[in-house]
Amino acid sequence: MKPDPRLEERRIMRVEQEGAKVMPDMVVREVPLTIYLNGQEFVTLLCTPELLDMLAVGFLRSEGLIGTYRDIISLRVDRERGFVFVETEGGRLAEKLYGKRTITSGCGKGTVFFSVLDSLQSNPVESSLKVSRDEILGLMRDLQEKARLFKLTGGLHSAALGKRDSVLYFCEDIGRHNAVDKIAGLCLRDGVELVDKILVTSGRISSEILVKSAKLGIPVLVSRSAPTSLSIDLAEKLGLTLVGFARGRRFNIYSRLDRILLWEEEQQ
Amino acid sequence: MKPDPRLEERRIMRVEQEGAKVMPDMVVREVPLTIYLNGQEFVTLLCTPELLDMLAVGFLRSEGLIGTYRDIISLRVDRERGFVFVETEGGRLAEKLYGKRTITSGCGKGTVFFSVLDSLQSNPVESSLKVSRDEILGLMRDLQEKARLFKLTGGLHSAALGKRDSVLYFCEDIGRHNAVDKIAGLCLRDGVELVDKILVTSGRISSEILVKSAKLGIPVLVSRSAPTSLSIDLAEKLGLTLVGFARGRRFNIYSRLDRILLWEEEQQ
Repeated sequence: MKPDPRLEERRIMRVEQEGAKVMPDMVVREVPLTIYLNGQEFVTLLCTPELLDMLAVGFLRSEGLIGTYRDIISLRVDRERGFVFVETEGGRLAEKLYGKRTITSGCGKGTVFFSVLDSLQSNPVESSLKVSRDEILGLMRDLQEKARLFKLTGGLHSAALGKRDSVLYFCEDIGRHNAVDKIAGLCLRDGVELVDKILVTSGRISSEILVKSAKLGIPVLVSRSAPTSLSIDLAEKLGLTLVGFARGRRFNIYSRLDRILLWEEEQQ
Repeated sequence: MKPDPRLEERRIMRVEQEGAKVMPDMVVREVPLTIYLNGQEFVTLLCTPELLDMLAVGFLRSEGLIGTYRDIISLRVDRERGFVFVETEGGRLAEKLYGKRTITSGCGKGTVFFSVLDSLQSNPVESSLKVSRDEILGLMRDLQEKARLFKLTGGLHSAALGKRDSVLYFCEDIGRHNAVDKIAGLCLRDGVELVDKILVTSGRISSEILVKSAKLGIPVLVSRSAPTSLSIDLAEKLGLTLVGFARGRRFNIYSRLDRILLWEEEQQ
């Protein structure tokens, strides 16, 4: 069997009530991926070594440095060294924008964080998507079934893009942000329409994950875990349906109830 | 009862097998905290609104921008707006260093990420601390008992600094990095010796958490969850004892076994 590049074996000592033994164990692999944007070292992400190109694309999309896949002139992954070299349209401009985003001097009235939110609010997610209870529960069940690496190692988050009751894309990564960015990269590459899709994740929903989903224009975000107050407020402002604690036959709806069809299954 | 500033009430719809009901529910509060360093907007962290000053101190320590608490000339929290204003010794220099760390142009031989690691490796953690099995399990039990907010909301990570079987500091935050940085801030403020302490966390151990512990000089890091391959490798290189999956009466040791006393309890 070919070794899985996402796993590594380590010798560990397992300590239990009865005693302790040295044994091999599988752990998730973590690698640094440094993105060079237009010839400059830009950022180092720590991630699972799979779909590194899509992680770079999704990260740049989430950060607003590219809008479409066509903005990328070239993309080359150096797996050995953990580098991705990306050349974009209007390269120098993107760099300046990013620089501005992170180190702008504050005027004391609004920080860069809020100016990013402001610009999003002028452009909320518009979608006539309706989702049934069974679709939500089915997608979460699929996510958990596909999460093989998590079952083996306990060290990963997963994310999936779904439509109706089928999963279109599925990613696992040591970082919950990375898993979503990989999904974003795949969608951008394949030109997938997102206005009628559902993003499903194993991880908690903080404002950052919510904003990623909103930037992509995905109208429904479903998590197995808890959302924060800020993510709920942003979901309302940005027009997203936010579902949390989707486990077994249960879930909570935190915003935009109107997209969830609760009783149609009974009515049919 | 005074409302807990770390929680907010939201109206949710809870969907179950039998039906759905609108009801109030407690969610964890998430706020943006923008750190202004020497008059410049530096970074925005998303966090639980508690110990914001200590989060800023710990973050600056973890990023290597301050060494001791005395490097801080002044620190003022504007809770209302979510700002922390920090003035440090040699302010302009710190800014330049940080700028360098994030946007340096890469020479293609080593990235900034690896140069940070290189500088750590020349300074591994030295400690003669020995820890018993019961101390590890006792500290993890305490961490879980203290994690009241998590029990209420399911949306938080916790971290604690321990010695022998007692917890000295305990923090909860929506971010596992923030929880550790708050502990770091408290230790720095109080001038706590760290060479004989244990850092306990609910969260997974990625290289970033491992490096935070190493930078602080804490010799033993214990998690309820999984470590990554890179965190294990770094633990070995930097001289840390890494313990994972500490649950009930079990745990795994991934590095520097010599600090764990497995059988002394039986021998006594």
